[in-house]
Amino acid sequence: MTPMEIEDILLEMKDTSELMIDLAYSALLYDNEEIARHVIELEERVDDWDEEVQQKAIERALEDRDVQKALVFIRLANSIESIADGAVLIADVVLRDIETHPVVAAALKESDAAIATVTVPPISPAAGKSLGELKIASETGMWIIAIRRGEGWTYGPDENARVEEGDLLIARGPVEGEKELRALIGG
Amino acid sequence: MTPMEIEDILLEMKDTSELMIDLAYSALLYDNEEIARHVIELEERVDDWDEEVQQKAIERALEDRDVQKALVFIRLANSIESIADGAVLIADVVLRDIETHPVVAAALKESDAAIATVTVPPISPAAGKSLGELKIASETGMWIIAIRRGEGWTYGPDENARVEEGDLLIARGPVEGEKELRALIGG
Repeated sequence: MTPMEIEDILLEMKDTSELMIDLAYSALLYDNEEIARHVIELEERVDDWDEEVQQKAIERALEDRDVQKALVFIRLANSIESIADGAVLIADVVLRDIETHPVVAAALKESDAAIATVTVPPISPAAGKSLGELKIASETGMWIIAIRRGEGWTYGPDENARVEEGDLLIARGPVEGEKELRALIGG
Repeated sequence: MTPMEIEDILLEMKDTSELMIDLAYSALLYDNEEIARHVIELEERVDDWDEEVQQKAIERALEDRDVQKALVFIRLANSIESIADGAVLIADVVLRDIETHPVVAAALKESDAAIATVTVPPISPAAGKSLGELKIASETGMWIIAIRRGEGWTYGPDENARVEEGDLLIARGPVEGEKELRALIGG
């Protein structure tokens, strides 16, 4: 594996922190400790990247003498870390919790970015196709943030991830997107 | 105005914090201090809501004796505050900055949730229609996070906001959604 450039790490951090937030709210909405624990795992990755950015930023500053640029890199990594921390705090509520979710869950469903679950039915036109082939995001406005197949989970699936009959999809998007997602996968 | 319930405030906080993140990255991508300053303004609102949630949560606990629920409300408000803080830190980079954006901007365009701008052309089929009528989010996967009309900005427009010729739309969504957004508004 070739070492990642600072810009690539920041991009991974950004995408991961956004996935963490969506997963954290999903965990809260469905009172799902497994998803909450995955948010905590992702946080460790973000922490490692944060340190890596700091080190590489300083190394690069030694080469190009551009102190300002190094500071921008370090500040951005810290910013994203703070966002990820917020997601961890939400996940933490789920992991500590004592049956207080229904109150909040009802409110969460009203969000601009609502979270929905759809199960892929038998004989779905989507079965066997990848998320990229289905163009789910651009066709329905919904982002697939997790897929449960049997006992296993895929978090933040990329466009190559395939949808199979019986999969449970957790998606985030506009309220009206849920209907379109169901139409697309025949759920 | 009737006072908001805790659940409603948390929902406003969630949606606002997510808008703040999108706006903060937009400000970074386009090196736009005006958008960055709006992120700072939204943070003040989130701070106020955070305090309001704390107060109301305790008041409600005095009534229903449910300490756990009050703690969940307070923790969630704090979590969202942390997410909003991250957005402020990013906006802060833009406001302090000294021409170091291009490096990071290039990386941001590769994000899962890419940011794009589209100008509504003269004689656009979308002109005069609301975001809700256009179903932009579910049709293209793109969320309109800000609209610039002349010198004025609308941040986080709701479904009643109308699109007019000459408007600049800032949208967030999957890379392939940008093409669909352009097709929809004839941009």
